[in-house]
Amino acid sequence: MTESSTSHVVVVGGGFGGLQAVKKLARAGARVTLLDRHNYHLFQPLTYQVATGGLAPGDIAVPLRHVLGGYSQVSVLMGEVTGFDLEAREVVFDPPVGSPGARLAYDGLIVAAGSNYSYFGHEDWRSVALEVKSLDSAVEVRGRILAAFEAAESHPQDAADWLTFVVVGAGPTGVEIAGQIAELAHSTLAGEFRHIDPASARVLLVEIADHVLGTFSAPLPTRAAEALEQLGVTPMLRHTVVDVRPDGVELRGRAPGPDGRVGETTQVPAHTVVWAAGVTANPLAASLGQAAGAEVDRSGRVAVQPDLSLRGHPEVMAIGDMVTVIDAKTGQVRTLPGLAPVAMQQGRYAGTTLARRLAGREPRRPFHYHDKGSMATIGRARAVVQMGPIRFWGFLAWVTWLVVHIFYLIGFENRIVVMLRWGYGYFTRRRGNRLITGEIRAGASSGRGGEG
Amino acid sequence: MTESSTSHVVVVGGGFGGLQAVKKLARAGARVTLLDRHNYHLFQPLTYQVATGGLAPGDIAVPLRHVLGGYSQVSVLMGEVTGFDLEAREVVFDPPVGSPGARLAYDGLIVAAGSNYSYFGHEDWRSVALEVKSLDSAVEVRGRILAAFEAAESHPQDAADWLTFVVVGAGPTGVEIAGQIAELAHSTLAGEFRHIDPASARVLLVEIADHVLGTFSAPLPTRAAEALEQLGVTPMLRHTVVDVRPDGVELRGRAPGPDGRVGETTQVPAHTVVWAAGVTANPLAASLGQAAGAEVDRSGRVAVQPDLSLRGHPEVMAIGDMVTVIDAKTGQVRTLPGLAPVAMQQGRYAGTTLARRLAGREPRRPFHYHDKGSMATIGRARAVVQMGPIRFWGFLAWVTWLVVHIFYLIGFENRIVVMLRWGYGYFTRRRGNRLITGEIRAGASSGRGGEG
Repeated sequence: MTESSTSHVVVVGGGFGGLQAVKKLARAGARVTLLDRHNYHLFQPLTYQVATGGLAPGDIAVPLRHVLGGYSQVSVLMGEVTGFDLEAREVVFDPPVGSPGARLAYDGLIVAAGSNYSYFGHEDWRSVALEVKSLDSAVEVRGRILAAFEAAESHPQDAADWLTFVVVGAGPTGVEIAGQIAELAHSTLAGEFRHIDPASARVLLVEIADHVLGTFSAPLPTRAAEALEQLGVTPMLRHTVVDVRPDGVELRGRAPGPDGRVGETTQVPAHTVVWAAGVTANPLAASLGQAAGAEVDRSGRVAVQPDLSLRGHPEVMAIGDMVTVIDAKTGQVRTLPGLAPVAMQQGRYAGTTLARRLAGREPRRPFHYHDKGSMATIGRARAVVQMGPIRFWGFLAWVTWLVVHIFYLIGFENRIVVMLRWGYGYFTRRRGNRLITGEIRAGASSGRGGEG
Repeated sequence: MTESSTSHVVVVGGGFGGLQAVKKLARAGARVTLLDRHNYHLFQPLTYQVATGGLAPGDIAVPLRHVLGGYSQVSVLMGEVTGFDLEAREVVFDPPVGSPGARLAYDGLIVAAGSNYSYFGHEDWRSVALEVKSLDSAVEVRGRILAAFEAAESHPQDAADWLTFVVVGAGPTGVEIAGQIAELAHSTLAGEFRHIDPASARVLLVEIADHVLGTFSAPLPTRAAEALEQLGVTPMLRHTVVDVRPDGVELRGRAPGPDGRVGETTQVPAHTVVWAAGVTANPLAASLGQAAGAEVDRSGRVAVQPDLSLRGHPEVMAIGDMVTVIDAKTGQVRTLPGLAPVAMQQGRYAGTTLARRLAGREPRRPFHYHDKGSMATIGRARAVVQMGPIRFWGFLAWVTWLVVHIFYLIGFENRIVVMLRWGYGYFTRRRGNRLITGEIRAGASSGRGGEG
């Protein structure tokens, strides 16, 4: 193993975790190559605002080259990583031009490739339902939601079906999207249509559990549900999705009470279904697991050692929501929430640890996640915040949410523009980015594959 | 013919001309339906800034429903107009959902469908060259320019071809795009690549005539050419394009002097060609001309009467860069420049005139274009302005250009955001919207058809 100053580390994925790892490695003197399929870092917690016209794509994405331009020993390469050769210590990837299957040698490797939505075995639903995950998918959702209102205006006899929006999964993302669609229908679009009333739109938020925001503590789920109903969202708790078709969804109720008896089946005619339910790790997690003989759970996450390294490969680390972490004391596999703070803390730890290891020094302690709390916003001036034993909601929670999100936005121009848009939107209830772009037609997906 | 208060006027196209016509008609009491294939009004003079990452798509586009929300007798419908039945007084269009060929009856009709770029009979070049016309095409150009730098970084041995950008046509759009690509290469991307020097990019501006900005008076073309060369653009004057292929263009020089002798042929290896040469009217112009027996010129423009109405159809008007206008005194056909002010003046005239006519009153005077001047910007702090006998250039011209463009931007939020971005960009030379989105791969078009 060479000196740290000349070691070459490849980082796969320029999300929250990958970017922190790159910075720590570069500061420790390593040569780093960051491989990402996109040329930008995406501030993923705000993609739902792009999907509903509140922010523009460029507001929440910054070119990776710009972020890392000041680190002279960091190279950025665009490319889609397809696999690893752990023995030869090479990453296999498809560059933007030329032959696929290019190879890049590493001394150390950090994989931070993230996750996709899971359709729980119903892969055919993936082409019907919409997702708010990548920037492209968010722009598609924006076009499809707005095109549904356009379709209703030109076919008022079918307006009810076009104006039914089904959001599946009442975690933070589902809650945020449902709230935003309701605000769009009730406030932003008011008075702009002649043949339909946009406020007649129904927004159904389907959730299998007993509560929205089930990972938050009481009374936040109840407060969130109240806020959603005030906005015009109908939470459909204790319901599972049985089928997703281009003309609607089929739901099945779960009888109330802990016995979980199966209830009635309901057909919901709708052309716009947004999927925000379970996640499945990037397939690169499973390929790492298979190559190293490490455990892979049913969500496709690979179990990494307490120091985030891959079993038998101290030079390879994996981080973020594509991994579970083996506890140093108990030996049990632990799943951390799929949040930006987890990825960032893991990225910093992995970068520092790998730089030390390549310099011949071993890490002092295993990775430990410091939970600083979590928050979700529901709509204009409504949010819930949980920080240890402290819980609050309403306007103050919303301001807290705003400040935290603006603070963590990368790029000064983005912060200013986002503050301006939010300030303007708060007072006028307008949204400046209501564009139907690309090859979008109402009710028809542009053929997006399983892009994550 | 019914009273003006109940007459129904259909306006095709929500560009500069169509939008002015709608407003005049609505204020005169007519019922109006605006049909557009997009859900937004595009501030087309700034699309080149989207194509080069200076502005975001949403900065220069406003939802038509938002612009017209306050006019209760105006309906907006999304749809692609495919033809007219002048006898039955019906517009034929494809709505966003449902069967194509829907029909919409009118008492009066204003067609403002604009133009596309012309490839002078070489339709096969259309799928190879890029265009900055629609918002989607501008986003594609942005992705392709940035992806070319990415391709050069991952294949430094082919960097020269990837870093050659050919812009065809040195009118205002071509000059603006070439200047922006040069600034991107020399300033914005400086220091962000490790295997190539972005400043080694060549930007060739190909023009058949003797000067850039040939419609401007001396000394502005010379001043513009000097400014372009300072930015790093190479004007290739007196050159025509003989072939456009995915791997390069073939140019032929015209020997200097007025005899127009044919000169040498040059092969230019390049993967990025932006077309900004001639225009051809929307095909709807020719179909109006054929239906009414009106003259159609070789650029596909239909000749309209001095009051902008279609021959034999006083209830149908056509405006903007899809028409030529017959002079009331000489009877000669006159071509006005394809500029926003022409379309806006024609839109206001057509709206007022048609409203009067539908109310049984005839217009008082033929349309007359008031030329308020023209301007073009070349890059940071460089522009040329011509207002009657007054000509100026440099920083003052650039400030004039800025003020006029911000003033005419529709939407308060857009004005603020654009001012902010330009101010930020002026001092930092950064561009916040450098995203490669959609299915863009370097050197490969996303299969855009002849969309205008």
